[in-house]
Amino acid sequence: MKFQAVKGTRDFYPQEMRLRNWIMDAWRRVSLRNGFEEYDAPIFEYLDLFTAKSGPEIAEQLFSLTDRGGRNLAIRPEMTPALARMVNEKINSLPRPIKWFSVPRVCRAEAPQKGRLREFFQWNIDIIGEDGVIADAECIYVLVDLLRELGLTPNEVKVRIGSRAIAVAALNSYGVSDELVPTALGVMDKKSKVSPEDFIFMVRKAGLSEKQGALICHFIDCAMLPNRLEDLAKEPGIGVAVQDMQKLFGLLTAMGVADYCVVDLSIVRGLAYYTGIVYEVFDAGESLRAVAGGGRYDNLLQVLGGPKVGATGFGMGDVVLGILLQEKGKLPASLGSGQLDYFVADDAPELFEQVVSLVAAIRTKGKSADFSYKRQNVGKQLQTANRRGAKNAVIVKAGGQVAIKDLTTGQQQEMSMEAFLKSI
Amino acid sequence: MKFQAVKGTRDFYPQEMRLRNWIMDAWRRVSLRNGFEEYDAPIFEYLDLFTAKSGPEIAEQLFSLTDRGGRNLAIRPEMTPALARMVNEKINSLPRPIKWFSVPRVCRAEAPQKGRLREFFQWNIDIIGEDGVIADAECIYVLVDLLRELGLTPNEVKVRIGSRAIAVAALNSYGVSDELVPTALGVMDKKSKVSPEDFIFMVRKAGLSEKQGALICHFIDCAMLPNRLEDLAKEPGIGVAVQDMQKLFGLLTAMGVADYCVVDLSIVRGLAYYTGIVYEVFDAGESLRAVAGGGRYDNLLQVLGGPKVGATGFGMGDVVLGILLQEKGKLPASLGSGQLDYFVADDAPELFEQVVSLVAAIRTKGKSADFSYKRQNVGKQLQTANRRGAKNAVIVKAGGQVAIKDLTTGQQQEMSMEAFLKSI
Repeated sequence: MKFQAVKGTRDFYPQEMRLRNWIMDAWRRVSLRNGFEEYDAPIFEYLDLFTAKSGPEIAEQLFSLTDRGGRNLAIRPEMTPALARMVNEKINSLPRPIKWFSVPRVCRAEAPQKGRLREFFQWNIDIIGEDGVIADAECIYVLVDLLRELGLTPNEVKVRIGSRAIAVAALNSYGVSDELVPTALGVMDKKSKVSPEDFIFMVRKAGLSEKQGALICHFIDCAMLPNRLEDLAKEPGIGVAVQDMQKLFGLLTAMGVADYCVVDLSIVRGLAYYTGIVYEVFDAGESLRAVAGGGRYDNLLQVLGGPKVGATGFGMGDVVLGILLQEKGKLPASLGSGQLDYFVADDAPELFEQVVSLVAAIRTKGKSADFSYKRQNVGKQLQTANRRGAKNAVIVKAGGQVAIKDLTTGQQQEMSMEAFLKSI
Repeated sequence: MKFQAVKGTRDFYPQEMRLRNWIMDAWRRVSLRNGFEEYDAPIFEYLDLFTAKSGPEIAEQLFSLTDRGGRNLAIRPEMTPALARMVNEKINSLPRPIKWFSVPRVCRAEAPQKGRLREFFQWNIDIIGEDGVIADAECIYVLVDLLRELGLTPNEVKVRIGSRAIAVAALNSYGVSDELVPTALGVMDKKSKVSPEDFIFMVRKAGLSEKQGALICHFIDCAMLPNRLEDLAKEPGIGVAVQDMQKLFGLLTAMGVADYCVVDLSIVRGLAYYTGIVYEVFDAGESLRAVAGGGRYDNLLQVLGGPKVGATGFGMGDVVLGILLQEKGKLPASLGSGQLDYFVADDAPELFEQVVSLVAAIRTKGKSADFSYKRQNVGKQLQTANRRGAKNAVIVKAGGQVAIKDLTTGQQQEMSMEAFLKSI
């Protein structure tokens, strides 16, 4: 019998694990220095929690299961529903703003493709309880802080920032009725991913007129023009949303991250629950899927049974990020080497028990140490030390003496075992 | 609509998350200093992988699911099957001994009770490719290293060490046939958990004679006698297994952890796949479930389609460990306070943009910093700084000056913003 991992999932052998930890350590480090606190939720929830947020059609993208009591559960495909559930549960005792982060494993029952797996890790940054754009600005700052931390430059990645509020106001001004707005936003979101013919088909299917389709095209084509915001500000009903965007860019400038950010009003995000500022991170060539995406979602907590509380945040998966870092040559050359401080060898088999004691003594002092199980000559043992990337080799000799060899410089010195242990 | 977490799972709010991270950091730290490398596997596997190892009856203790292709999957209830699968896949390219650790989330469809949840984290330490007891000794050393790291003393916890090989040899000498040995081991394992009447019932049900039942009782009653190993050594067919145990204790003594260890031949472990040395960790009063358990499993890789390779290791869950640390008062008093290096306040609302810039500048230098989104008087802002457990408050004043206040000592000094940034 031969067993394999399920397609679309990954085995993390030590080498892949070191890379995963390197990315997740950066996520944690950046989150903490920006004043966010870590939380987590169970890997599975009641299915209802996901369908309440995203509609019943989400169910087929989920890995769902049934417990012994016959209850319908599902593995989490994202973190936001559990976040909203947890915050709602303690909404009256949590000091606001709530600044939380998480690095959950999530699973989606999708067909695996480049940059899209059925199991991955997703960094989540969320601020709950603050309506002002300062919270959106801070989320985007954290996002850029991470990109910068990993060595990605403003020429290599861009945060493309749009506004649901501006897009909705524009659609209203084109005569799109309120009921059609969600579908029209979906059409906008898909525009760049489909052919002109398919776009026209989508417009018709959404119940929009040809003229409205043309106006949406125009809106998207002008989405990145330098004076676009100023021009829009003159149109009726759109002023406040434009001011929010301008205020946001003022804050991003004060924070020193504006060089990573561009206005792109064609960004509206696919999911129904976004309400204000929205954004996605792409590599400059846009050859990959979005590295991260997020925005304001002021209604979600209420939809999930809580009060109306302002909320904003983003998610970043490890898969596309990993591909991007690899392609741009940003991965560290020697991940995890030098993890072993001392490799202890014996000069003769009868000294083995002393090796075992010395290794234990070194570890007790908080340093890492290892040794060969097989009794071999010193040369073979030192080969293992080198293969393991140990910083130092310690050779136990007769008469309680040890030789310490720095495996980087090759320098060697002898002393008593006692003196050596004291020196650690 | 109100949503709740599934029964038997846990929400990790920041406070609970800090405790979980504190335990998992200790697991990682101890693993690395003992020369183990981290690995991980997917959260779900093909159902067959689990039934091949543990028999079809395991299926009802699993959270199983079906993917869109109709394949039967299950969330992992433990790590060993995936470990064996991964090692088998690369058995010819992995240098031995393979010393790996993992800290996976695992799920079991059991009824929740004290110390037993349906989702928990489990530290796994395994050594593959070494047949000698040195590998068992090292696993037990790592286990004790962790207990010691968390402040648990030899008076509070004990590693109770038995031997499958000795137990099987004893059963053989009582005339128990090879086919009945697995069932008889199960009876032995359950002896301490059932009444004398239920034990007799179990003996009969297992197809053992009354005399064999009495001999098993005697074996268990004598399991911890000081000279038990020496006495057993004189019996035929049991010598090698006894020598292994004696060698093990010699190594544990050389490693300096023998004070945490006792011989307890009644420990045989429930699972079918153990072959040699086995052990469980209990609190001294044995008021809780086992904190950890493990042993040698030399046949498992072969059962899962690989070659016959010696393997030994243990698992430790976070739930019983957490309860024990709590009961013994070993949890740190102020987990995670002091995570925030600087809380930046403004002396007047018009200085807010300078606050935002200064916070970003501090974070760019790798220190953690935060600020109030609301414009409030300095007093209110400093209250927030204290609530957040910040180490220092920085008050931005007119004219590019800042006052730095050490929130532990109360000491305060003023300087230019430039000088302050240089000092970080």
